[in-house]
Amino acid sequence: MKKISEAVVRRLPVYLQVLSDLSKRDVQTVSSQELGNKLDLNPAQIRKDLAYFGEFGRKGIGYDVSYLIEKIRQILKLDQGLNVGLVGAGNLGRALCNYNTYLKDNMKITAVFDANPAMIGAAINSLVVMPMDQLKDIVAARNIRIGIITVPAVEAQNVADGFVEAGVEGILNFAPTILRVPEHVRIHYADFTTELLSLAYYLEKEGDETDEPLVD
Amino acid sequence: MKKISEAVVRRLPVYLQVLSDLSKRDVQTVSSQELGNKLDLNPAQIRKDLAYFGEFGRKGIGYDVSYLIEKIRQILKLDQGLNVGLVGAGNLGRALCNYNTYLKDNMKITAVFDANPAMIGAAINSLVVMPMDQLKDIVAARNIRIGIITVPAVEAQNVADGFVEAGVEGILNFAPTILRVPEHVRIHYADFTTELLSLAYYLEKEGDETDEPLVD
Repeated sequence: MKKISEAVVRRLPVYLQVLSDLSKRDVQTVSSQELGNKLDLNPAQIRKDLAYFGEFGRKGIGYDVSYLIEKIRQILKLDQGLNVGLVGAGNLGRALCNYNTYLKDNMKITAVFDANPAMIGAAINSLVVMPMDQLKDIVAARNIRIGIITVPAVEAQNVADGFVEAGVEGILNFAPTILRVPEHVRIHYADFTTELLSLAYYLEKEGDETDEPLVD
Repeated sequence: MKKISEAVVRRLPVYLQVLSDLSKRDVQTVSSQELGNKLDLNPAQIRKDLAYFGEFGRKGIGYDVSYLIEKIRQILKLDQGLNVGLVGAGNLGRALCNYNTYLKDNMKITAVFDANPAMIGAAINSLVVMPMDQLKDIVAARNIRIGIITVPAVEAQNVADGFVEAGVEGILNFAPTILRVPEHVRIHYADFTTELLSLAYYLEKEGDETDEPLVD
């Protein structure tokens, strides 16, 4: 299969969500125009994205919804079952555990850890917070492949090192700091402040922006 | 100034963070190589990004840290002061309010709302949860320009409509659903499941992936 660009990979879960909604409503085919309306994307862009899967749609009929769902689930490895571990049982960590409801498709947070002794043993839905010294054993025992970091920035690198040592293959970091991991570990950043600050750039009304030339 | 691409805008907060760390340690100049090491980016990419600001660095000296910080803050409108409102005072909403500590630079969550009567009046740090019927008045009174949505997916469109009616210019949506907003309102998605699912794509070990051709 052709290598899929990062931008397309990021759109796949969104396609999957829209297609799943359609499937729940017993919709069997969908046009690129309809998908475009739902996703605020150009239909030509959608046709190009979907062409990666060898699925081109048929004129006047559209795309087969359940075929696309199956294909995207395969590409995202959702057909495999994927266990996720989380370190940091504060508000954010707890909120993420609640997303388990949305994480159908065999991808689940199956273990939660915290360094704070007062947190150990606390229940978050069906999970029980475990101490950090069990991270390595539990990651191995439960075949955890992705680690989520929801600890303060100053502790994040230590937690990342722990996850790497325990053998996870991917890390999703919510701490507002850059982390160093070996090349074979994929790291994604989900820092909310980054989203918020880049959103600010697009606000329409300008305040006191100057017209000074961009030189020293 | 040249129009800045979306990808570069998303990197600006990350540059800002690294540069602020350097500045705190009294570092006055930095090379694209050093920035590249810290950010896991190619130095050539960094030089290209920074060229947007008319700042090219000087051979053997590097970039002026405080000048870059000032420039990026201007571009992200952090020199203006920016108030943010949040709807949904659950775990995620509370976690985001805690980020106010990181949101220096005049960008702050200044109001929290919830539809649940049991939540009204509760304190989250220095904020008090307010009822939804005050959203419009408070957004106007506090000049809130960005709205954050941390409610369940089924309620998210209603909340977005409320923010739009109240006059916000940008929305950051954490609910795992696509929202419709008018063209003049910028919407960013911070859905954690999307991040997690796209991360899964990059895991190295393949499970039971088939080699079947990608045709029907």
